[in-house]
Parts: sequence; structure tokens; C-alpha cells
Amino acid sequence: MTPAQSARLAYRQGLVAPTAGVAPGLTQANLIALPRDWAWDFLLFAQRNPKPCPVLDVTEPGSFTTVLAQGADLRTDLPLYRVWRDGRLAEETPDARALWNERPDLVTFLIGCSFTFETPLAQAGIEVRHIALGCNVPMFKTNIACRPAGRLHGPMVVSMRPIAASRVADACRISGRYPGVHGAPVHVGDPAAIGIADVQRPDFGDAVPIRAGEVPVFWACGVTPQAAVMASGVPFAITHAPGHMFVTDVADEAYHA
Amino acid sequence: MTPAQSARLAYRQGLVAPTAGVAPGLTQANLIALPRDWAWDFLLFAQRNPKPCPVLDVTEPGSFTTVLAQGADLRTDLPLYRVWRDGRLAEETPDARALWNERPDLVTFLIGCSFTFETPLAQAGIEVRHIALGCNVPMFKTNIACRPAGRLHGPMVVSMRPIAASRVADACRISGRYPGVHGAPVHVGDPAAIGIADVQRPDFGDAVPIRAGEVPVFWACGVTPQAAVMASGVPFAITHAPGHMFVTDVADEAYHA
Repeated sequence: MTPAQSARLAYRQGLVAPTAGVAPGLTQANLIALPRDWAWDFLLFAQRNPKPCPVLDVTEPGSFTTVLAQGADLRTDLPLYRVWRDGRLAEETPDARALWNERPDLVTFLIGCSFTFETPLAQAGIEVRHIALGCNVPMFKTNIACRPAGRLHGPMVVSMRPIAASRVADACRISGRYPGVHGAPVHVGDPAAIGIADVQRPDFGDAVPIRAGEVPVFWACGVTPQAAVMASGVPFAITHAPGHMFVTDVADEAYHA
Repeated sequence: MTPAQSARLAYRQGLVAPTAGVAPGLTQANLIALPRDWAWDFLLFAQRNPKPCPVLDVTEPGSFTTVLAQGADLRTDLPLYRVWRDGRLAEETPDARALWNERPDLVTFLIGCSFTFETPLAQAGIEVRHIALGCNVPMFKTNIACRPAGRLHGPMVVSMRPIAASRVADACRISGRYPGVHGAPVHVGDPAAIGIADVQRPDFGDAVPIRAGEVPVFWACGVTPQAAVMASGVPFAITHAPGHMFVTDVADEAYHA
């Protein structure tokens, strides 16, 4: 069994934990499942906002399998799901089978995750703080508006990694090689400039310390669809819980431009 | 008036000519307009086949403007259009306004074009044969099947440029910097290996000579949607005529990865 298969099996059997650092070298993905009636709006939203929403795969309506991972069941193989009703978080659950049964026509989108370029960052000697601390990556809503599509609109969500000033250029260069999984940062430096009031109080995930000589660096984040679900009052959606991703069988290098 | 605006105005006033080499440094785009009912299938087809179908913009239903070119009218500003009925080419026209009126809900997709990386190829001293000869690029249907989406399926169409053997690596490297406009080649060498019986008889565009010491190099082509329209029997579609592209205001460098 591969590390990805082992991880998916553990989550299927009930393990709940953030996936940062799990199965290194294999791509992880954000998930959002929407009724067929909302699928066009969402795919167009993703096309118009490719930095936060790089689409890796789209299922057939009602299907819960994907070309990204053989034998995976998208209803059970993530550690934690969120269900949204009328734009509000209704519950979290480690098993989404009952929710999938509610709507037989769900179309599921798998979206690239910045975890993909964390392995090459680490290999280049750039510490990824939240992995070093064994916690979830900090994520923030910003004042950067996504380009709307149909009924969907909302702010861009970003993830933050503190980077030593001398390595910021390397972090930009290395992550920029992976445009299919968020690519280069959208903002470097002052959190307030993108509407983040307190960088130690993330909207999702865990706070991490920024040390002397480090700069906060912000990447577009695949939690952006959840912010759009909230802002747009989408009647029904299932997503991953932030930081609790889908571990695929696809090598990170497949997304190297 | 910019070179792009001048070109669009000339086409609007009736000029019919291939756009290769026009307004160098500005991106050109393939066009396909489909009734709203087919838009989901097409956007998903593009997501599943990003090399032949890199989407640069999608209009609102019924709209004929685009963020890619201020003041442009997508119904008149291309040199030549094709209209497809039940998967068959029905007519070619330089003015598609009457056709747009037939269907008030057309969604128009603008798709990247390999012309975008021809300027950097030429700047690197790689001759682009069809520009040197003042003709249209040769395009071929292949035996490479696109990944189907909904009701849409069909073969990949490729464009061909003969490249000196010593420059093939440079051509791959340079075009590979532009993944949003077809990127690196899909095939280098033997045309028969991808189902092309006679490289001197293109399915679209004009034949160009392959000289001694040159290798035919094949890139995914934005005429692929037209092949899908044919193979899938789409009831109604408007496209550009091959090689007669939409000239945008966007600098080629905007698509540099």
C-alpha cells in the first residue's frame, strides 16, 4: 500500500487530523461538491480565478470517484468535511456518505493545494513553519475580491508562510514553477494591505510565529470556494475542512510547469 | 489606435486574411460560441483537455464583449467565422451578427493560440516557416483522443512547425514557458505516429515545406473544439475560421508562466 493509500484508508476508518506533511511528494487537493445546478457557476468562477481555484479534476454528477486516486471514495477518504446550508456552516463530519445521499446530482471539484510546493520549498532549505510546528497552515480572508461568475462572488482566501527575507525570492521562484497549484505568492509583506487585521488571528487553521528577519508571504488558497459559498449564500455544499485535504496518487512533479 | 485595434477594425470593415504575424507581441485567440445548454459540456471539455483548450475568457450568455480587448465586438472583429449546424460546416462569413441573433443565449469561449509563442521563437532565431512564407499554419487531426466531457468528444488537432534539429530543444523550452497558450509540443517527429498520413496535406491551413535537417514539431491546437463539434454532432456553433483569430489587447508576456 502506498503512503497515499494508507492515509486515505486511515481517514476512511475515522482518523481526523490535518494533512500537512502527509505522504510527502504526492499532491493534496481541496474539495467542493455542489448540486449540478451550481456546477456551471463554480467552474466559471474557477476559470476566472485560477490562482485560488486551479481545478485538478471534476467528477460526473453523482460520482464520488476521481482520476487522481485509484479506488478512492470522495465521500469518506478525507479526514474531515464541512457541510454548508444557505451559505452557513451547518456541521463538520468525518464521513459524508449521508450528505452525498441527500443530493444525487453532486458535482465534485478537486482543486490544487499549496501543500504541493511545500516539499520543494523544504528541499531548498526553506523552513515551512506549520510543518515544523506540526500544526495547520494559517489562512485568512482578504480584501481582494474574486472576479464573480454567475451567482458566485466572494473574497480571496490566502495561506501564509513566514519566510526569511533572504529566501523570499527563492520561495517565489520555486512556488512559481507550480502554476497549477496556486503558483507564486499573491502578496509579500504587510498583512494590512490585503485586509488582514491581525496576522496572529487566522480565519482558518492555526497561528504560527513570525520571527525576526522573516516576512509574511501570502499564497492564494483553495479555501476561497468556501468563502464564496458563504458570501453567495449557496443553498447546499460539501467541502473539506480547511487543512484536511484529499491526498491523491499524483506526484507533485506532475504539476511542475 | 494600437496595432490590435487597427487589425480588429479592418476585419470589422470586411478584410478577410489569416492573422499569423499580425500585431506581434499581442495574444491571439481561438473562438467558439455555443448555446447556453452546451456551455457546461464545453467548459468541462476544456478543463479536461487544457493543452488544446486553454481558456482565456468566457463571456456571459448573449454577450459579445470580452475583458481581453476593450471595445471589441466578437461578432464582427474576427476576419472570418464558421457556422456549424448538426456537426457540419454550414457556411463561412466575415460578419456573424445575424448568426448571433439566431440564438440569444450564446456563451463564447476564447481559447489560447500557439501564435502567442511564435514571437519569442522568432526572437530566439527560430524561423517560423508559415510566417516566413506569408501563409496559414498547417493543422492536422490526430489519432490522439481528447478526454470526453458530457456530450463532447473528438480527436486532438495539432499545428505543425518544421524546426531545425539543433533548435528543437529550444523550441520546446521556449513554448513550454507559455502553458496557458498550448505550451510545449505534444509530439516531435514521425507524423504517422499520431495518425497523420501525409504531412504535406493538412486538414486545415496551408502546407509548408520541411527542409533537410528539420523535424516536424506538433503543438496542441485551438481548432480542437471544431473537431469536437464535428465528432459530437453539436446542433449549433460559431467558431473562427482556422488561422483567422481574434487579436486581443493582451501582451503575450501576460501568458509567460
